[in-house]
Amino acid sequence: MSKKNILYAQSGGVTPVINATACAVIETARINKDKIGKVYAAHNGIIGALNEELIDTSKETKTTISGLKHTPGGAFGSCRFKLKSIEENLAEYERLIEVFKAHNIGYFFYNGGGDSADTAYKVSQISKKLGFPVSCIGIPKTIDNDLPITDNCPGFGSVAKYVAVSIMETSLDVMSMSSSSTKVFILEVMGRHAGWIAAAGGLAQRQADDPPHIILFPEVPFEQQEFLKKVRHAVNTYGYCSIVVSEGVRNKRGKFLAETGTRDAFGHAQLGGVAPVIANLIGKRLGYKYHWAVADYLQRSARHIASQTDLDHAYAVGEAAVRFAVQGKSGVMPVIKRTSNNPYRWKIAEAKLSRLANREK
Amino acid sequence: MSKKNILYAQSGGVTPVINATACAVIETARINKDKIGKVYAAHNGIIGALNEELIDTSKETKTTISGLKHTPGGAFGSCRFKLKSIEENLAEYERLIEVFKAHNIGYFFYNGGGDSADTAYKVSQISKKLGFPVSCIGIPKTIDNDLPITDNCPGFGSVAKYVAVSIMETSLDVMSMSSSSTKVFILEVMGRHAGWIAAAGGLAQRQADDPPHIILFPEVPFEQQEFLKKVRHAVNTYGYCSIVVSEGVRNKRGKFLAETGTRDAFGHAQLGGVAPVIANLIGKRLGYKYHWAVADYLQRSARHIASQTDLDHAYAVGEAAVRFAVQGKSGVMPVIKRTSNNPYRWKIAEAKLSRLANREK
Repeated sequence: MSKKNILYAQSGGVTPVINATACAVIETARINKDKIGKVYAAHNGIIGALNEELIDTSKETKTTISGLKHTPGGAFGSCRFKLKSIEENLAEYERLIEVFKAHNIGYFFYNGGGDSADTAYKVSQISKKLGFPVSCIGIPKTIDNDLPITDNCPGFGSVAKYVAVSIMETSLDVMSMSSSSTKVFILEVMGRHAGWIAAAGGLAQRQADDPPHIILFPEVPFEQQEFLKKVRHAVNTYGYCSIVVSEGVRNKRGKFLAETGTRDAFGHAQLGGVAPVIANLIGKRLGYKYHWAVADYLQRSARHIASQTDLDHAYAVGEAAVRFAVQGKSGVMPVIKRTSNNPYRWKIAEAKLSRLANREK
Repeated sequence: MSKKNILYAQSGGVTPVINATACAVIETARINKDKIGKVYAAHNGIIGALNEELIDTSKETKTTISGLKHTPGGAFGSCRFKLKSIEENLAEYERLIEVFKAHNIGYFFYNGGGDSADTAYKVSQISKKLGFPVSCIGIPKTIDNDLPITDNCPGFGSVAKYVAVSIMETSLDVMSMSSSSTKVFILEVMGRHAGWIAAAGGLAQRQADDPPHIILFPEVPFEQQEFLKKVRHAVNTYGYCSIVVSEGVRNKRGKFLAETGTRDAFGHAQLGGVAPVIANLIGKRLGYKYHWAVADYLQRSARHIASQTDLDHAYAVGEAAVRFAVQGKSGVMPVIKRTSNNPYRWKIAEAKLSRLANREK
């Protein structure tokens, strides 16, 4: 029996460091040539797997693969496409197993968030049932940092750094201008349900009075009067007000402030544009001159300011996925376990996909 | 007669490197201690000068001053406040001369764009008339790159680098996602009347087909049908479309697409939010899923990705201003003169403020 191949697929939104994970998978598989065959990368995620669009990474040079570490975006493409339940759409799972058979796939690596952990878990179960057992390993990645168990998600650390640096820099800008011009600056960041990214703005604070003066979280219902009071207080006290707002901020009735009515491919409401909503409110009610920025893709593609620790995490989980595969494991995900707070130390641990799937931290 | 002091003031929007100019002025004045007294920095620009809020930089340590080179924002504060014509408001000019007299100011350095060159020019004239001649030197700074004569404006190079890197990174993001999700990404950048910043997005193109696929300039009237045709073509050809749009884009009737009706302190229309306008148009007319970002202050405060050449320019003009002052010059501005294209070489030259004032390139 020949050595089995790996099928590696990325899923969902990219991160500044997801390609570092791809790099680690390919480089570690090459080191384990005696046990593992080729690494195929699905073109555009699971859609590419279903369409049998596989990229044979063995054709790429060492330099090209190594270059992935520094490349933003998702080099092999990603997708927003969630496999339905096995009951609803067995055909899709059968199709996947067919593709696995055709390409001698023994290991399926799915690099994504909670949805992807769920898919990897389902594939591991169905592959056994269909008599072609494949080792299924989830690899964590979300900028939202919303996976349970793992200390943090690869991708988040870089976005956190981006947000902290950006609000620090822009606050110095509005501070300079505030005597006669802009008094309020609002930075909108990602985070549909989890406020981790918005919270990262707080890292810019070195002392209690430092900006940002206000952070609006998706978990905390927006209270207009209280918010306006805080803005006025900051302007009166510091001369300006610097605000980080999460795209997912909701009012007391649970409605997104930036609700546009459109939905993404997973049925989640598609957001964007809460900053101008907040800005207009401030302008109308308090009369302050404002500026606002929506970071959107800027924050999650900013490889130029990626965190080295995050990059190390992203590489380590890819490396561990191959190690787990070689050890014959399935239905698991390598996660980051913190072993010390100060200095920050961590190691790779193992978590069951069944405990990670579809759960938000 | 004691040595005369310098009054240094920043004006208008900050740049990632304006503090490097301040640093150069102070460091170069310290080297010329035998000829020049103290450097006072006006707190919040010309408003601080009028209010006699002067910061005595001689009290700051060498390390603090040197640290300015790496600090975003405007360390001494800036303002949007244009002195009226001498006929309209002689009192303001007389007040300025009073402050000059009170603090033994012999040199007035005004660091800004076209408006500031104009003010510096007026001050140089009125100071002579009022019998207290002050050497007035403009120092160039605008991210818009809209000053004539100088090869480029300190501040612009860093913003250009930010925009080029950002559209390169975000284009890789949308490219990864385009098979099943976002097909169009729009980055809104600054530039009210001049498209230099938007044009910098083009630096991301290494080959003809590289993103950005479309750049919208303030100088070119927006043609809806033609634009939508280009978007559709890009999506059909490359699978996605990456767009840089200047905040100042106007329709055929000359109206800003993002016109909000509000005006800034100089009476210019205040812009922001053309990206969502364009995005909605694409969504409605072509049905593509889109994402958009508004860079706003992010682009002009991004010291972390400043251009070294820009930083060198910013320092050099500050240094030259002191040199001109020592040489007894007035009514002039140090500008950047390109001496070679490839490799890029430059030197500092001298331009008359009367030729720079209130002119846009």
